Amino acid sequence: MSKIIAINAGSSSLKFQLFEMPSEDVITKGIIERIGLNDSIFTISVNGEKITETTDIPDHEVGVKMLLDKLTTLGIIQSLNEIEGIGHRVVHGGEEFSDSALITEEVLKKIEDLSELAPLHNPANLTGIRAFQAVLPNVPAVAVFDTAFHQTMPESSYLYSLPYEYYEKYGIRKYGFHGTSHKYVSQRASELLGRPVEQLRLLSCHLGNGASIAAIEGGNSIDTSMGFTPLAGVTMGTRSGNIDPALIPFIMEKTNKTAEEVLDVLNKKSGMLGVSGFSSDLRDIEIEARNGNERAQLALDVFANRIHKYIGSYASRMYGVDAIIFTAGIGENSDVVREKVLKGLEFMGVYWDPALNKIRGEERFINYPHSPVKVIVIPTNEEVMIARDVVRLA
Amino acid sequence: MSKIIAINAGSSSLKFQLFEMPSEDVITKGIIERIGLNDSIFTISVNGEKITETTDIPDHEVGVKMLLDKLTTLGIIQSLNEIEGIGHRVVHGGEEFSDSALITEEVLKKIEDLSELAPLHNPANLTGIRAFQAVLPNVPAVAVFDTAFHQTMPESSYLYSLPYEYYEKYGIRKYGFHGTSHKYVSQRASELLGRPVEQLRLLSCHLGNGASIAAIEGGNSIDTSMGFTPLAGVTMGTRSGNIDPALIPFIMEKTNKTAEEVLDVLNKKSGMLGVSGFSSDLRDIEIEARNGNERAQLALDVFANRIHKYIGSYASRMYGVDAIIFTAGIGENSDVVREKVLKGLEFMGVYWDPALNKIRGEERFINYPHSPVKVIVIPTNEEVMIARDVVRLA
Repeated sequence: MSKIIAINAGSSSLKFQLFEMPSEDVITKGIIERIGLNDSIFTISVNGEKITETTDIPDHEVGVKMLLDKLTTLGIIQSLNEIEGIGHRVVHGGEEFSDSALITEEVLKKIEDLSELAPLHNPANLTGIRAFQAVLPNVPAVAVFDTAFHQTMPESSYLYSLPYEYYEKYGIRKYGFHGTSHKYVSQRASELLGRPVEQLRLLSCHLGNGASIAAIEGGNSIDTSMGFTPLAGVTMGTRSGNIDPALIPFIMEKTNKTAEEVLDVLNKKSGMLGVSGFSSDLRDIEIEARNGNERAQLALDVFANRIHKYIGSYASRMYGVDAIIFTAGIGENSDVVREKVLKGLEFMGVYWDPALNKIRGEERFINYPHSPVKVIVIPTNEEVMIARDVVRLA
Repeated sequence: MSKIIAINAGSSSLKFQLFEMPSEDVITKGIIERIGLNDSIFTISVNGEKITETTDIPDHEVGVKMLLDKLTTLGIIQSLNEIEGIGHRVVHGGEEFSDSALITEEVLKKIEDLSELAPLHNPANLTGIRAFQAVLPNVPAVAVFDTAFHQTMPESSYLYSLPYEYYEKYGIRKYGFHGTSHKYVSQRASELLGRPVEQLRLLSCHLGNGASIAAIEGGNSIDTSMGFTPLAGVTMGTRSGNIDPALIPFIMEKTNKTAEEVLDVLNKKSGMLGVSGFSSDLRDIEIEARNGNERAQLALDVFANRIHKYIGSYASRMYGVDAIIFTAGIGENSDVVREKVLKGLEFMGVYWDPALNKIRGEERFINYPHSPVKVIVIPTNEEVMIARDVVRLA
């Protein structure tokens, strides 16, 4: 029996989840928001109730101290000694990390070097790691990378059709993200199907505000829709996904923006927000579409169209598919999106049941029993994957 | 009986083909190269033999005069009066043209306005049109657009997930290209299948130095891989196809290039040339791959991988497919590429015969007779499509 804490640190936030292992029971979880800003917010669940405290938390280290203080003063644990390992989500592991890694100075250095590939994320993740090192220097910590699961992609999947030296000199290739989630649901699907993951061809649709699709063959990611960055692939809440690359210079000229400014538009003002003109949130868009808003309907159609096409694409990639998985906020909750994505896939053996599809956030098969291809809704759980890797590696 | 000439004018070249209509017999064809440069080359076929002449041709008008002069002096036609119509290939018809159009001053003005969307092509096409207007002012001429066939795409296919005003203000959307070729092979496939095109779901792979895939449902293009420009979609000879758009600012910074310079790399130094490092020509790459060159093998794999995935993608788009068509230089001639593209598609009903696949440039079914999805190699013929549209519209 041991207690493991899973951490997801952003530039001004820190999410935590404390597990009892190996039972994987969640002892508590919460989030610290607005770190470094005025009126930071500390939220923690105790016995199913949320406790919120507003105070100034100047940096992550202060936040971590407050968290550990709360764990004992609220009686969640008796002593900090009970925490036997810490798991940190790290966005970019580049080609260095094809698995989670016990954090050493060398590992930290590599994560720092990889900041060039994830300038918004890796530095924030490092801040979280360093805060815990300062406060709990003797507890082993493990870094769990969003990219690691996709390192099994073959070169024909990950290489762009660019001058080859761009790959050699600058590390330009497809990395893929959401790996921890894709790995979790693929393992869970294997359990639900009662078949070893080695024998399965799985198509995982992680559809949240960020969205990516992965082709998982024999437990290994062999292709995924995100690319060098999380901008690529399907339409997302505010991200464009793939566009004709020639549009960037064209938009720069038309709008008198720099390349970085155009990139900012592609990341923050595009996707369903750009098409609908009013929201990046699929729930809002579904409501407005039902109310007859044409641009909302269009945003929904474009979003589903892109995912629908990836399903066929990755089915081809794996010479067929055994199960399609839907996960993350939209994938777990939107029967409307699942319906549009799955429509017309009978030609490849997908027979899904509209009645079973009418569920929200529940683990469930939604295919007809006779369907050769199974369709499964699986709530994702990246935190438990982090905790498992701490147990395995710490 | 009438004679129609089909013209494809580039910035320094002019290809021509003279048809007897409605028999569609080719009376002669040829090309004028290096227009405006020293030692221009005029080539024309007469009775199956090529006649070549090197001389200075300062502009397209001089070239057209020479061409018409040759037609009579070589005895190919008796009098210029026999030419009853001229058809001009025009690359970009924007949203203005969903069909070919009889050329008027208004049409010319629109083609000129569309130069913004095709700065390399439309001005050159216009030069060809004007040269013929100067020399044969009274012969009706028709413009045949590469984009027109794709104007049937629904909004969910052609709209990018960008701020909607980019579409409204700047015409930013997917246009698609190679439309004349996709249309030709889809009509020819319908004849070969003995089924009206209205009842067919066709997947057309135009694979040349430029390459695009089209999903053609009921005779209408409903999606295609090229986009706002011919850079998008699959890997090509020298073009990258789709990449993570975030790579453009990254490459700009790393290589100290402007956006336009990066675009130039994506258009001219990427694709199979970029990956292989030595050639954009598939024939060279196939030879070197057979000789054990790993980068050549990789270029081949990447190229085929991208097309293979579009097949599944567009099969999903149409809820299945009745026939897959291969056309253009590579599609007609490379059994190696066809094999890689078709491999493993049995899950969607594609059963192809490796023995039948061993053909070059011949119109032929290459599927097993029992295959639910037919696979057809069809040499394309954009020129005859141009001639047909002249007959229909002039």
